[in-house]
Amino acid sequence: MKPGTDVEVREVGLRDGLQGIATFFPTELKKQWVAAEAAAGVPEIEVCSFVPPKVSGQFVDCQEVIAAALQVPDLVVSALVPNLKGAERGFANGVHKMNFVLSVSESHNQANVRCSREDSLERFRQIAQLRDSTPENRKVQLGVGLSTALGCTIEGNVDPADAVWLAEELVKAGADEIAVADTVGYANPAQVRAMFKLMRENLGDAVTLASHFHDTRGLGLANVSAAIEEGVRHFDASLAGLGGCPFAPGATGNIVMDDLVFMLEAMGLKTGVDLEALLEVREIVHRGLPQERLYGAIAKAGLPKGFAGAAPAVQAAE
Amino acid sequence: MKPGTDVEVREVGLRDGLQGIATFFPTELKKQWVAAEAAAGVPEIEVCSFVPPKVSGQFVDCQEVIAAALQVPDLVVSALVPNLKGAERGFANGVHKMNFVLSVSESHNQANVRCSREDSLERFRQIAQLRDSTPENRKVQLGVGLSTALGCTIEGNVDPADAVWLAEELVKAGADEIAVADTVGYANPAQVRAMFKLMRENLGDAVTLASHFHDTRGLGLANVSAAIEEGVRHFDASLAGLGGCPFAPGATGNIVMDDLVFMLEAMGLKTGVDLEALLEVREIVHRGLPQERLYGAIAKAGLPKGFAGAAPAVQAAE
Repeated sequence: MKPGTDVEVREVGLRDGLQGIATFFPTELKKQWVAAEAAAGVPEIEVCSFVPPKVSGQFVDCQEVIAAALQVPDLVVSALVPNLKGAERGFANGVHKMNFVLSVSESHNQANVRCSREDSLERFRQIAQLRDSTPENRKVQLGVGLSTALGCTIEGNVDPADAVWLAEELVKAGADEIAVADTVGYANPAQVRAMFKLMRENLGDAVTLASHFHDTRGLGLANVSAAIEEGVRHFDASLAGLGGCPFAPGATGNIVMDDLVFMLEAMGLKTGVDLEALLEVREIVHRGLPQERLYGAIAKAGLPKGFAGAAPAVQAAE
Repeated sequence: MKPGTDVEVREVGLRDGLQGIATFFPTELKKQWVAAEAAAGVPEIEVCSFVPPKVSGQFVDCQEVIAAALQVPDLVVSALVPNLKGAERGFANGVHKMNFVLSVSESHNQANVRCSREDSLERFRQIAQLRDSTPENRKVQLGVGLSTALGCTIEGNVDPADAVWLAEELVKAGADEIAVADTVGYANPAQVRAMFKLMRENLGDAVTLASHFHDTRGLGLANVSAAIEEGVRHFDASLAGLGGCPFAPGATGNIVMDDLVFMLEAMGLKTGVDLEALLEVREIVHRGLPQERLYGAIAKAGLPKGFAGAAPAVQAAE
């Protein structure tokens, strides 16, 4: 975590936001987005997904976007890797961190990555072995997103014991971070607290626990607040909630980065992000996708009178 | 609280939702709304405000709406009363509960009710004396909403000590319930926890603590979740978030009743409300105000697969 900050927010809009959008977001604007959001203080940005181009045309410019992002001072550049081939591309392109993804519910994993959870675990082990067997790759962080950890559109309720089993195997294999993902927006605050308590009890303090929440049913920030109560300090979000929910027209997808930063700063947790500067980055997203609906309560309602945020405090702390 | 329930949700849309809307909501539909939402299981409904008709034409039918509401079995019928005159009308019409309102910030109280906080306290004392001096009125509950308790659009931050001072005076005067109100949507979960902790410490266990939160900056349900952590079990909300925020176009006002019930039930807290039936009541609101935007994540995204109140996953984890 950056010095002087209490929490780490990570932008996933360029990956999770864009992956479901058919319109190609222009490469030049992706680079501007990354640079502007990093300049606003966001410390980590997932800039693309190494899925095959036939799966999504949105990421054909991965190499160029990563190269530009790596020029941004102090930015942790991450990418989603679905398999060993993706990880090879990640290593070759020099990202600082790779995020692997598998689903806690078997049928969602089959639907999403077309293999069993056991096979997904094996894929991750291969990636971790590649990382650990190559001296220049050893500094690359490996995160894993546990999709459908808190509910599944196919199976409904998901057994927390399965999430713990997978997390333990992943940590054994070399995962540096486990992100509990509410992929479909089913989670509630009580469930989130119980899940992170269980994770911490079973995984110990060595691994970083993170959250990747969606706001599909309006509880995204309530769930973040619950995670905070359990000591979680790493949160994924998407600027302007980009992407929505492809399965529910008009419903939101990822939690809104700008609202997340507002909540955290209001709670006295320093994010290192200048909220006014962050809000201005929405304009770049709008330019790249003028037809796409942007979300965000702060963008609509404005900041509270006298709201200081942590921007000045953080600068003073650094 | 109703037998078999853990929490009490109270509908305020007919008062707080409608008070800012110029279009008159037809009396017949108000009565249908009350009956249908009570039938869905909502135990308490604030059906009108006893402001003078020149202040708002929305409530000229108070008498008729109250009379109809009082026919609904087991429903607690409440009304907002701004002063002694309003309370006299409330007693005359036989409401079960009256909600008085004053602002914690002096300048907001002056702007809203055109008197000092001291004068507002005196008004409440008169109402309580009228209640206590008349045998047939003694069963009427008196609640007070502490507006701007968590922030003010005029003054910015508000001293929690002022909220405690007013609450103590109100309880001394005879208030049965104190509702901490985030009138302008400034509050955050950490602040909410601190406020309710302070209230409980200073007021003891005799008085009921409630929350009246707005979702203007997206934190309404996160704030409810924080209040739950502090033992609060009484929550105001408005079906479909009716009313929006008059000061921020496109921004929401009251927290959405349907989403609130979803969150509470998902957390395993029994509301006594049939969520499917509640969602159908939105249609009545739409018929009364076809031009008004209705809010709600569940109405858009639908309930989670297999949703049946408390998520078994959480129970298994504990």
